[in-house]
Amino acid sequence: MSTVVQKYGGSSVATVEKMKEIAKRLIARKEKGDDVVVVVSAMGKTTNGLIEMTKEISSNPCKREMDMLLSTGEQISISLLSMILKEFGYESISLTGFQAGIKTEGSHTKNIIQDIDIERVKTHLNDGKIVVVAGFQGINESGDITTLGRGGSDTTAVAIAAKLGCSCEIYTDVDGIYGIDPRVYPAAKKLDFISYEEMMEMASLGAKVMETRSVEIGHKYNVPIYVGLNTGNVKGTYIKEYDDTMEQNLITGLTATDNVLMVTLNNIPYNSNNISKIFCRLADENVNIDMISQTSPSTKYVNVSFTTCKDDEPNIDRIVNELKKDMTEIEYLKESDVTKVSVVGTGMRNQSGVAAKIFKLFSDNNIEFKQVTTSEISISYTIKTTDKDRTISTLAKELNL
Amino acid sequence: MSTVVQKYGGSSVATVEKMKEIAKRLIARKEKGDDVVVVVSAMGKTTNGLIEMTKEISSNPCKREMDMLLSTGEQISISLLSMILKEFGYESISLTGFQAGIKTEGSHTKNIIQDIDIERVKTHLNDGKIVVVAGFQGINESGDITTLGRGGSDTTAVAIAAKLGCSCEIYTDVDGIYGIDPRVYPAAKKLDFISYEEMMEMASLGAKVMETRSVEIGHKYNVPIYVGLNTGNVKGTYIKEYDDTMEQNLITGLTATDNVLMVTLNNIPYNSNNISKIFCRLADENVNIDMISQTSPSTKYVNVSFTTCKDDEPNIDRIVNELKKDMTEIEYLKESDVTKVSVVGTGMRNQSGVAAKIFKLFSDNNIEFKQVTTSEISISYTIKTTDKDRTISTLAKELNL
Repeated sequence: MSTVVQKYGGSSVATVEKMKEIAKRLIARKEKGDDVVVVVSAMGKTTNGLIEMTKEISSNPCKREMDMLLSTGEQISISLLSMILKEFGYESISLTGFQAGIKTEGSHTKNIIQDIDIERVKTHLNDGKIVVVAGFQGINESGDITTLGRGGSDTTAVAIAAKLGCSCEIYTDVDGIYGIDPRVYPAAKKLDFISYEEMMEMASLGAKVMETRSVEIGHKYNVPIYVGLNTGNVKGTYIKEYDDTMEQNLITGLTATDNVLMVTLNNIPYNSNNISKIFCRLADENVNIDMISQTSPSTKYVNVSFTTCKDDEPNIDRIVNELKKDMTEIEYLKESDVTKVSVVGTGMRNQSGVAAKIFKLFSDNNIEFKQVTTSEISISYTIKTTDKDRTISTLAKELNL
Repeated sequence: MSTVVQKYGGSSVATVEKMKEIAKRLIARKEKGDDVVVVVSAMGKTTNGLIEMTKEISSNPCKREMDMLLSTGEQISISLLSMILKEFGYESISLTGFQAGIKTEGSHTKNIIQDIDIERVKTHLNDGKIVVVAGFQGINESGDITTLGRGGSDTTAVAIAAKLGCSCEIYTDVDGIYGIDPRVYPAAKKLDFISYEEMMEMASLGAKVMETRSVEIGHKYNVPIYVGLNTGNVKGTYIKEYDDTMEQNLITGLTATDNVLMVTLNNIPYNSNNISKIFCRLADENVNIDMISQTSPSTKYVNVSFTTCKDDEPNIDRIVNELKKDMTEIEYLKESDVTKVSVVGTGMRNQSGVAAKIFKLFSDNNIEFKQVTTSEISISYTIKTTDKDRTISTLAKELNL
């Protein structure tokens, strides 16, 4: 007998009918002899409905009250799911975030889990109950109800699994994790396994299946995470520690992000303060910088390129014009209609020549790339958006994704 | 400077627009220099919407989960109302039942307040905040969310006022308490004052303005309760301790209940057990008995009449037929289309002749009455429903209601 934490998102529990299907899956697992904790999100569009009401009140409603409001969404799902389990003849109990002992800290609407007092969950599991926990929420030191922000229910599930020392299964409306988003490249292959680190790189590079935070917790506490379809029995993907027995591609995944603006500042007077001054000004104005590459400076000048979101263009125009008052020599170049393509793989850590192989692929196929940055397990390139489809299919084919 | 607890029901907070009007009233009170606690119910039809979902699950859903579900209704209202107050520039904080320290005991869906740990409310009041508390809910010793059943938000408000040692104002869609329901007798007079005891008699006799429980708490802790309209400035009714300076009618109020079934059992063999046996059987089957009158027994037999709700008729038929197997002499008579009329007044405690005066009114107007029962401050009669309107207008006119 083992314990499992399963998590179902909002579309899986959008109606009472859908919840009944989830209940049957939970019961089947319980009947196999496992102890079952289930974490659920708010029903389908509930959260949006609540947010709509706040728009009648304020464009920037109090965040503490926002948490109080939004946390009702999961409370509704857990009570209904628990009712259904009992109606099907199984012992069950629903627990809000605070009842499940989920203690959080940070700012309202984006709290992080500080600790979980897991005793109540354990007691109910020992009594043979299916424990239904509200995702996305907790309680802070002041006794206020808090929410965990984006991907919060995944985080709740993985954190509870970490405390219980068991595995976590995330059920969703995609059937696993792909090396490339299948909506972008339909021939994409589903992965059987991916390491925590690769998943984190891919998540932060824009693959939307799971938020980075929950994978981080899984990594830290070594919680095996399974991601699969919320219906049927299609085999999904395991996220776990990198393991030599994993069938390991050099490259595990590829992500692409459109709507990128590439900014280049040439002829920045070269002293130690100027680069820092530029990026501090951008940060002060909340301009989100992604890739940064600086080429080796000449004696007098240095050149920097960075990517950002196209929406920030007017902000950047304003900031650069201010900076030019002090640094009159700066040449300001922008390129829009740029796509960022990133390839990720733990394998590249131990193998040289991955960048070279990709450069050669680009060269053989006449794909022009503009900026390159690397991390230990990823390489990112910017290309023209018009080259995107060709780039993805070339890389996917040659790298066996 | 004093403190006040105000309570607004579901129709007062049915929309964000309506909540804004309530917020303005609260702010006006705060501006007068008072500390303000406000207790609110769930928005309009929210609770019904939640109950509808449970009907897809079970005809008898788990009551613990029902409390978990329904308590979200008030949580939504308090967060929105607090957001509005802040948007209007006033410090405010919303508290769920458990955050407001409301500890309950009893069975789920009909818990009673066991105690209130009022410290958090006091702290926020001292900080100058308008404290918005969820009505109808609390937390029990196991840490489960509970609800207080019918009239629960009134109970929350009066209990908090008792703890704070201040007065309580219940705002609703009626403009006060009338001696007779104005829908039944449009010329009914609104009362300026009514004593706790009279209000409790009237509430338990079917006047729906306030539930008996909240008036009981008000009585026990001597909390002055004001009942008035949730809009405008029409003067409402004060419920308070009986006071010789109150302008006191002999009779304060009159209530009428339709759909009554009057049952008479004649010729019950007279011994000490039989009457008890009959009423125990009825209680076992959850038949709700209201008026009971027993006439003085003969040496062999005793006669009993009681009233009940017409819906219980099939149950009573079955039970009486079972009882007749042992007590074959019993004669079983039923009369439906009966209305119960009750007159209530603390004044009658100290004055003889009230019953006589009413009997004479009935006699002068040829109104036939079937059963009579009395309490210290009330007299109830059963009459034919066809005589109801005539009876009410006669009594109201003659008793100056």
